[in-house]
Amino acid sequence: MPVQQKLAGKFIVIEGLEGAGKSTAIQYIQDWLISKGLSEQKIELTREPGGTVLAEKMRDIVKMDVDDEQLDDKAELLIMYAARVQLVEHKIKPALADNKVVIGDRHNWSSLAYQGGGRGIDLNLIRDIKQVALGDFKADFTLFLDIEPELGLSRARGRGELDRIERLAIDFFNRSRAVFQQLVADEPSAVCIDASQSFTDVETAIKQQLDTWLASL
Amino acid sequence: MPVQQKLAGKFIVIEGLEGAGKSTAIQYIQDWLISKGLSEQKIELTREPGGTVLAEKMRDIVKMDVDDEQLDDKAELLIMYAARVQLVEHKIKPALADNKVVIGDRHNWSSLAYQGGGRGIDLNLIRDIKQVALGDFKADFTLFLDIEPELGLSRARGRGELDRIERLAIDFFNRSRAVFQQLVADEPSAVCIDASQSFTDVETAIKQQLDTWLASL
Repeated sequence: MPVQQKLAGKFIVIEGLEGAGKSTAIQYIQDWLISKGLSEQKIELTREPGGTVLAEKMRDIVKMDVDDEQLDDKAELLIMYAARVQLVEHKIKPALADNKVVIGDRHNWSSLAYQGGGRGIDLNLIRDIKQVALGDFKADFTLFLDIEPELGLSRARGRGELDRIERLAIDFFNRSRAVFQQLVADEPSAVCIDASQSFTDVETAIKQQLDTWLASL
Repeated sequence: MPVQQKLAGKFIVIEGLEGAGKSTAIQYIQDWLISKGLSEQKIELTREPGGTVLAEKMRDIVKMDVDDEQLDDKAELLIMYAARVQLVEHKIKPALADNKVVIGDRHNWSSLAYQGGGRGIDLNLIRDIKQVALGDFKADFTLFLDIEPELGLSRARGRGELDRIERLAIDFFNRSRAVFQQLVADEPSAVCIDASQSFTDVETAIKQQLDTWLASL
């Protein structure tokens, strides 16, 4: 089967803490896809939360600072899944059906890591909501960029003001990271990349992992 | 126990289809509470979805018309619960803890009726989300104003433009009504009021039901 046909309709997800280098990694994945003969028209990028007009409105609520009113943890979780189902149904699934490769900047694991590990909501409750919202839909291949929270945050700080989520404590990110690490350990279609390496080494690792994955298809 | 003390910290909810007369009923309930000696400061009104700054932003998303992008049914359901948990945690629970009486214009049953009955989402899935979001929290007393959808809609039309939800078909409302009717039949702390009666008769019925409820406290 030609390479393009093997890749058609695949959903690749990048997960990782702030400052892990997700945006750069997405650029590497695009380069790799193009090097395999895919046209840019056959590559769709998404980010979560957000990615459609309505999902971006939901993202705004999560990022919003309102005096005297903090967003409840469970409300945040539910909005994250509302935005996710909107994105999946209106953008990701149609693109996959159109034989595109979708590259997702975050997906379901981020809710397990941040709302579960970080905020302490029971992971089984989150899995219940995921099942109600999305059923068995999941990424075909997940790259988790692993980095120590301190290093990630210092990189993220380099690119401007910290937002509400970024300002939360290092402990929060350590708990989130532990969930990411467990998820990648348990999921055969996912790999862990050491994101504390140099950009060149991260790029090499990502491309090697993508080649291995492609060979398995 | 003095009447005011019996009523302190109680959550009364009005449910019903569009045009059933919920706003008027809420006025009757307020009058009744005041006739029992409650001060206006001890009565808090809420509406769903909405009722806090962030929950109103969520309401905006549900009501929003976006070209080429319909809000997914499950996304709508999740936003409804996000708004609900935000309202419950930031407004209703604090008011109840402050010994106020809270009168809710819609609450949990509306999701079961509209997203469940109306849109056809499995009621058990909705109950799972309710449990994740709110645990066992529920109204102390629910008044369901029952009306035929045609009559309700013609009343609702009388007060201006129909919004997105109101424009949906009569069938939708018939399915929603059937769920409301089942919920009220199954719930000992709820009563059904025939909302097709004259305003005077509805007012009398509401006040009688409130008196009966108060006597049971």
